[in-house]
Amino acid sequence: MHVLLDGDPGHDDMLTIFLAAKHLDVVGITTVGGNQSLEKTTVNARKCVELAGLTHIPIAKGLPRPLVNEPRYAPEIHGVSGLDGVDLPDPTVELSPLHAVDFIIEASHAYDDLWLIPTGPLTNIAAALIKDPTLTERIAGISLMGGSLTYGNSTAAAEFNIYVDPEAADVVFRSGVPIKVFGLNVTRMASATVARLDRIREIGTPFARTVADLVEFYRASLHNVFGLEGASIHDPLAVAIFIKPELFTMQEMNVQIELNGTHTRGMTVCDYRYVGTEGKGLYGEEAVTVGAAPNAEVAVDMDVDGFFDLLTETLALYR
Amino acid sequence: MHVLLDGDPGHDDMLTIFLAAKHLDVVGITTVGGNQSLEKTTVNARKCVELAGLTHIPIAKGLPRPLVNEPRYAPEIHGVSGLDGVDLPDPTVELSPLHAVDFIIEASHAYDDLWLIPTGPLTNIAAALIKDPTLTERIAGISLMGGSLTYGNSTAAAEFNIYVDPEAADVVFRSGVPIKVFGLNVTRMASATVARLDRIREIGTPFARTVADLVEFYRASLHNVFGLEGASIHDPLAVAIFIKPELFTMQEMNVQIELNGTHTRGMTVCDYRYVGTEGKGLYGEEAVTVGAAPNAEVAVDMDVDGFFDLLTETLALYR
Amino acid sequence: MHVLLDGDPGHDDMLTIFLAAKHLDVVGITTVGGNQSLEKTTVNARKCVELAGLTHIPIAKGLPRPLVNEPRYAPEIHGVSGLDGVDLPDPTVELSPLHAVDFIIEASHAYDDLWLIPTGPLTNIAAALIKDPTLTERIAGISLMGGSLTYGNSTAAAEFNIYVDPEAADVVFRSGVPIKVFGLNVTRMASATVARLDRIREIGTPFARTVADLVEFYRASLHNVFGLEGASIHDPLAVAIFIKPELFTMQEMNVQIELNGTHTRGMTVCDYRYVGTEGKGLYGEEAVTVGAAPNAEVAVDMDVDGFFDLLTETLALYR
Amino acid sequence: MHVLLDGDPGHDDMLTIFLAAKHLDVVGITTVGGNQSLEKTTVNARKCVELAGLTHIPIAKGLPRPLVNEPRYAPEIHGVSGLDGVDLPDPTVELSPLHAVDFIIEASHAYDDLWLIPTGPLTNIAAALIKDPTLTERIAGISLMGGSLTYGNSTAAAEFNIYVDPEAADVVFRSGVPIKVFGLNVTRMASATVARLDRIREIGTPFARTVADLVEFYRASLHNVFGLEGASIHDPLAVAIFIKPELFTMQEMNVQIELNGTHTRGMTVCDYRYVGTEGKGLYGEEAVTVGAAPNAEVAVDMDVDGFFDLLTETLALYR
Repeated sequence: MHVLLDGDPGHDDMLTIFLAAKHLDVVGITTVGGNQSLEKTTVNARKCVELAGLTHIPIAKGLPRPLVNEPRYAPEIHGVSGLDGVDLPDPTVELSPLHAVDFIIEASHAYDDLWLIPTGPLTNIAAALIKDPTLTERIAGISLMGGSLTYGNSTAAAEFNIYVDPEAADVVFRSGVPIKVFGLNVTRMASATVARLDRIREIGTPFARTVADLVEFYRASLHNVFGLEGASIHDPLAVAIFIKPELFTMQEMNVQIELNGTHTRGMTVCDYRYVGTEGKGLYGEEAVTVGAAPNAEVAVDMDVDGFFDLLTETLALYR
Repeated sequence: MHVLLDGDPGHDDMLTIFLAAKHLDVVGITTVGGNQSLEKTTVNARKCVELAGLTHIPIAKGLPRPLVNEPRYAPEIHGVSGLDGVDLPDPTVELSPLHAVDFIIEASHAYDDLWLIPTGPLTNIAAALIKDPTLTERIAGISLMGGSLTYGNSTAAAEFNIYVDPEAADVVFRSGVPIKVFGLNVTRMASATVARLDRIREIGTPFARTVADLVEFYRASLHNVFGLEGASIHDPLAVAIFIKPELFTMQEMNVQIELNGTHTRGMTVCDYRYVGTEGKGLYGEEAVTVGAAPNAEVAVDMDVDGFFDLLTETLALYR
Repeated sequence: MHVLLDGDPGHDDMLTIFLAAKHLDVVGITTVGGNQSLEKTTVNARKCVELAGLTHIPIAKGLPRPLVNEPRYAPEIHGVSGLDGVDLPDPTVELSPLHAVDFIIEASHAYDDLWLIPTGPLTNIAAALIKDPTLTERIAGISLMGGSLTYGNSTAAAEFNIYVDPEAADVVFRSGVPIKVFGLNVTRMASATVARLDRIREIGTPFARTVADLVEFYRASLHNVFGLEGASIHDPLAVAIFIKPELFTMQEMNVQIELNGTHTRGMTVCDYRYVGTEGKGLYGEEAVTVGAAPNAEVAVDMDVDGFFDLLTETLALYR
Repeated sequence: MHVLLDGDPGHDDMLTIFLAAKHLDVVGITTVGGNQSLEKTTVNARKCVELAGLTHIPIAKGLPRPLVNEPRYAPEIHGVSGLDGVDLPDPTVELSPLHAVDFIIEASHAYDDLWLIPTGPLTNIAAALIKDPTLTERIAGISLMGGSLTYGNSTAAAEFNIYVDPEAADVVFRSGVPIKVFGLNVTRMASATVARLDRIREIGTPFARTVADLVEFYRASLHNVFGLEGASIHDPLAVAIFIKPELFTMQEMNVQIELNGTHTRGMTVCDYRYVGTEGKGLYGEEAVTVGAAPNAEVAVDMDVDGFFDLLTETLALYR
């Protein structure tokens, strides 16, 4: 199975790369601004593949700003480099000569059943859909980290990846492509506590210790900013679904991106009015379905321990 | 303790009246359009006090339409009368000569520590705040049924009472008055199943049987429309908090009313980003509070069995 | 012909009263916050009728704040009293015991063919339409100063009266009542220059001199704030149409109130796409009418000299 | 002086090409969807350069859809081909191998003082600004046809080019680049009546007759749809300013794109509150400037006969 990872590394984007590369056929990594500027996230992507010996995966640099919004970064979470915690060596691996948007379009021609896995703002993905609307016919789907069933983090209603580029998210969610959504409601469950980081550290390899040290920086940031106990391992969930689908409870529902609200711009408006009901009327007839037609599968629950087992075991495969 | 009940009876508004009248000093009932037209909800309020022998409570008729929206009713839930299920006799009790808006303002002068308890659209309450802004200084607070921490029922994001008159809700939530909110997230928990209605019926009085028959109509409607197993006993929670506060887990948070969203108009945007976290940074310092300043206490959990015990015991006090 | 003047005096509202009282049957004056607070505009209305010997006209005090917005006043235009320029004596005339909203509703029952003439924010008028939706069937129409075909003054797009209470304006414009609109596009033409004020002063009466001195304050304010040469005599146009209709060119068109725009909240969106065209297709057929159905008559041009003749001659009737 | 023409030919875009090519150094034509689909406007651009013997000008194909909106075309104005009226031969000239967005960026490196002249939706221009934010430092400015000081055509408030892709327009107007705006308020003045088309036809060349026949189709469409007497020669104004600047009265002002209004999405909100005033306070001091800081020069008046002289004389230069 072929996947293309689009992201803004970032500590959890890093783990996404490491998780995907041992289980799936990663055709490339495309970078976008988000956790930090495009320049920094592109450097970080290169550092990640060098750290893990994955330099055969091509990296293509993407768009430096959202479609409409001014750029916003998250240095309070990922540090000034976007991947603070350990000073990794300056990377030497070359970038792809292709722009990320063209890389995505070319990959869709090269592979059947390609899944795009965006874990940052959806700018590159939307730009590819705008540049070539037939892309929707050639990809298998999009599995993304973003949004939430419920509350936000950037605002009360909006999660960071969607908030940074709501117009891009709107293009994606109205594209008709099959979409899997991993939002804050599950990613906050995937909490890398000190104990779970210790398990990674106990793998004993220099690689594992470096990864644990990097994630520890991120854990401390989230603790300081949001008071969370552990680090939300957001992004790898969008990959884990393809490795161990049984880890997740997915629910089909309608998801719209709010572009206009005074308090809700960037919200993923999930229509789960009928979720968890019997779906049958009083006398056995079908219940009136009051929700809008589903356009996405949304993760509503997960096996947290199973996920951390998978992550830890995978990291142990690196030297 | 003095309370004024403002609502649009409605099956659950009816229970609110019955619950309040045995435990609190109800200074009046004011009516508003919502579950049905103002004419019908006013008739229903009169039927309720007659059914329960509460004709000493004055009833004042309120506003026939929302501030800005066109009126919307819910006949699919409460029937064409707004209180279907049993044909109650035409009421003969007189209405107060005062308009509801003036009744509210006069009551605020007559009683110290008056709580307003609106269980329909907030039109009357907002109109009173507009007509006399000093009302905020004379009332103890507003305990309301409306909105949700999470999902809506009228739309994916908006609950009926707020959706019908979002501008009125906005006036209320920005008024500075202490507010208690009982939204769908708890009111859907307060589910009157067939078994729970049977308990009410088993009280054995004609009154209890009539109440159970009325609520059964409502239960069947919710089952048919939303596929719910039991009837959400929304409105009485806003009264129950004053009788048995230990039934509820309340959380202070910021609540804003979205007036402008394409998909979110009428949503109660609850900022609970910091809820459930330790509130302490990594090294023991205070966590950065990322949520906006609280302007409401929101019910986040409840003791469902305890609530139905209270409701059933109270209904048993009527003959 | 019976008219009810609703306004926020204000220098030009004052002239509206003086103009109306000599030509039309003024059944009452209702006051609203706008140019200044409700308390101040109500005092000013009382001063105006005392200055002109019009104390037989009842004055009813209205709503102290807009439906949704926080109040906004215009001291930079009308001064701290709302009617700066001459120290008029403290008024002694009594207010009507009725609230303005009830006064409006009662007047609609008392008189056939009553025109409401609002020259401030539309709060009272909207509140009357909300309180009694059948009002629309009993009044002849609403002739108002507000909005603009084109540009605004409070913002690039919005005129002050509409900007202060856009929700009220929305209720009025969607009510189905016949509406005449006098917006900035004509009221800025009605420019009281120094020469035109001199003509008023030359009437020679103490009354005329006082009026000229009051308007001179207003002229200087508009000059200082907007750089205008003369004082825009906005409000009296909404009355003058009934005295000398030939002064105005009226055009039927659709007018909507924008409630939600980032840059356009409070704008009167006038659809004059078809205005000034032949209305015939190439081969004689009817042109495709692209504008929305008219709901208002909008003043698009006026005879400025004719208007100032009328105003000056009318002021000369006062001693 | 170097210019790049970006448009959606389209009858008036065609005239833009012909006008520019005889007076300015046209470095390329980039195409966009608007008057018709991208496929059709690109064919039309190729037909135009072949008709006029301008095949040395490279043509680069652009984006097939707006950034966020679904595509909208105007077959009722420009016909099913987007350039109806004369059956021009199928074009054989090759397209540039570059995508329009890259063509724009490359041209900005190749030429100092390049002006971009977009006469369709601003999708390509915005996409270039998104892909390379440093573009703003390398171009002299953007002279565009779009928007209006006053009324719209697609809606009461919005002009077609901006309405089709408001987000793109927003990116352009907030870019900080010098912008010249030619909106409906002047382009409707540039009315190609039958008499003016006869003057073109009387040039006597086959080229002139063909151009007149093409524009006659467009004139008839506008007559039938809007009841206009003549064809609005919108787009060439954005070029004419560089050939005979004395034809236009330009006014600096602030222009914002409304993205969110219920009735105003796609409006160019022009702040001309201070336009036409003396700019001096009562006692000689500077007037309080109430408008926002200018970000564009907007055409507010034009010499219509002078423009048609220029257009006719230029068309006479073609054989």
